[in-house]
Amino acid sequence: MTLGIIGLGLIGGSLGLDLKRRGYADVVLGVEADAVSAAAALKMELVDEIVSFDNCIERSDIIVVAVPVGTAVRMVCDILDRFKEGGYRDKIVIDVCSTKEQINQATHYHPCREQYVSTHPMAGTEYSGPWAAMPGLFDGRACIFANAEESSPKALKTIEQLYDVLNMRPIHMDATAHDVHTAYVSHISHITSFALALTVLDKEKDEKHIFDLASGGFSSTVRLAKSNAAMWVPILTQNHDNVLQVIDTYIEKMQQFREAINDFDGDKIRELIESANRIKKILR
Amino acid sequence: MTLGIIGLGLIGGSLGLDLKRRGYADVVLGVEADAVSAAAALKMELVDEIVSFDNCIERSDIIVVAVPVGTAVRMVCDILDRFKEGGYRDKIVIDVCSTKEQINQATHYHPCREQYVSTHPMAGTEYSGPWAAMPGLFDGRACIFANAEESSPKALKTIEQLYDVLNMRPIHMDATAHDVHTAYVSHISHITSFALALTVLDKEKDEKHIFDLASGGFSSTVRLAKSNAAMWVPILTQNHDNVLQVIDTYIEKMQQFREAINDFDGDKIRELIESANRIKKILR
Repeated sequence: MTLGIIGLGLIGGSLGLDLKRRGYADVVLGVEADAVSAAAALKMELVDEIVSFDNCIERSDIIVVAVPVGTAVRMVCDILDRFKEGGYRDKIVIDVCSTKEQINQATHYHPCREQYVSTHPMAGTEYSGPWAAMPGLFDGRACIFANAEESSPKALKTIEQLYDVLNMRPIHMDATAHDVHTAYVSHISHITSFALALTVLDKEKDEKHIFDLASGGFSSTVRLAKSNAAMWVPILTQNHDNVLQVIDTYIEKMQQFREAINDFDGDKIRELIESANRIKKILR
Repeated sequence: MTLGIIGLGLIGGSLGLDLKRRGYADVVLGVEADAVSAAAALKMELVDEIVSFDNCIERSDIIVVAVPVGTAVRMVCDILDRFKEGGYRDKIVIDVCSTKEQINQATHYHPCREQYVSTHPMAGTEYSGPWAAMPGLFDGRACIFANAEESSPKALKTIEQLYDVLNMRPIHMDATAHDVHTAYVSHISHITSFALALTVLDKEKDEKHIFDLASGGFSSTVRLAKSNAAMWVPILTQNHDNVLQVIDTYIEKMQQFREAINDFDGDKIRELIESANRIKKILR
C-alpha cells in the first residue's frame, strides 16, 4: 500500500514515521511546499520520497491531507475532483484537521464524498515542523471520526485500521458536535495560554525575572502559547461561533474570581476553587 | 542539628525528607494538626517524630513554618515571641509561603526579627498533603529570599546552606517586588486554570466527553486547577492588589482575542499569537 502525506509537519511527519515502521504502508510519499521542511523530512526518514502533488495523487492509495485547516478545505475538494476526473474509485483521502464542520460542509455534496474520511487524531505538542515529528505520538489518544456515515463502509474500514495501527481510540461524532466539544476542550486552552503569555510578557519587561521565577506550574499553563499561528489562525476563525461562546463563558468565570478577590470574599474564592477541583475526577 | 517542621504537607514533608536524607538535619521533628496527616508523615518517614508545637519550639534549632500563609503570619510572630521569652538567641525560624509582603510587615519591628528568614522555595505540584511529598522536589528550582537584610548574617547563612543542600538557586528580592512578580508568574496561572476548569465543567455536562477528548494540551493547561483551596484562598486574598491588576491585564488580552476572532481578523489573531510565541525564548 502506498501512502501519500501532504504537509510534513508534526502530524503528517509523525503519521509517516509510525505507519511505515509498523508496516501499514509499504511506501510513504511526501508533498511539502517548504523546501527546507521537505529536505528535513526526507533526511529524518519520515517519508521515503518527496514528490509533486500530482504525482502523489496518482501513486497513492491513501492520501492524508495534513496542512492547516484553511488550506485543507480547498485541498480535499480538489483531490476529490481529481478522483472523479481520473476515475480513481478506490483511492481514499483523509484530513486530520482540528475543525470539522466547514470541511464536511464543503465536501457534503461531492460525487466522490464516499472516498473521503474526515478525522481528527487528537494528539500533538506545542511544537511544529518535521523536526517535531516523533514516534508514538498518537498511541493511546482519541481519534474523532466526523460524519463517518458519509464515507463508504470500505473506505471507513480502511481508515479505522490505519488509526488502529497508531493505537488510537476511535470516537464517532457529527462534525458540528465535534467543533463544539473541541472549542471547550482544546481551543480555549490555547487561547488562555496565549493570553497568559501576553499578560506576563507585557508586564515583565525584565525577561530575566520570568525565567528565574517560572515554576513548573507556570511553564505547564503557558506551554501551549508556543503553538504556531499558521495552524491556529484558521482553527480560531473557522470555529468562530463556538470559540466566541467559550471565551464569553471563560471571561465570566474570570470575572467571578475578580469580584471575589476584590471583595476579600474568602468563602466565595474557596467555593470557586473547590468547584474547579472537580476536574480532578475527570482527568485521571 | 534538630529541624522542626510545622505543617507536613507537600512542601513541609518534602523538606523533611531531603534534609534528613542528605544529612543536613540529624533529627526532624514534625508538628501537624491533622491526625491522619501526622500518622502518614511518620509512616512515610518524612519526619522522625511527631511532637507538640511547644516541644518543637523548645527542641528545634531551625523551625520551618510550612502552613498556609494566613496562619503563617500569626505563627511566625508567635514563634519569635517565644524566642524572646525563652531567651533563645540561636534558634532560627523560616517560612516558605507564596506571598511575602504581609508576613514581612508583621515581623518587621519584632525585637527578634533577625532570627527570622523569609523564603519562598518555588517548587510544588498541584497535589497536597504528606502523600504528595517527594524526594528531589526542590532540585534546580529558584528559592526567593525576601528582605534578607533584616535577618542576621549568621541566620541567613545557615538558611542559605539549607537551601543549598536542596539544590535550589537563591534569588534575593524585596518582599514587595516578590509579590508583584509571583502574581504574574505564578498566581495568575492558577486563576486561569481554575477558570478554565469551571468553564469546561459548566458546559460539558457530559463528563465522559471531556475525558474522551481531553488532549495533552488541555490536561497541562488545566493541571493547576487541582490545587487546593486551603493554600490558595489566603494567597489570593493577601496578594489582592497585585492579583487584581494581573487579572485586569489578562482579561484585556482575552478581550483582544475575542475581538479579533469576532471580526474574523486573521492578521490580528496572527499578530497576537506571534507576540505570545515570544514566551518560547524565555522558557527553555
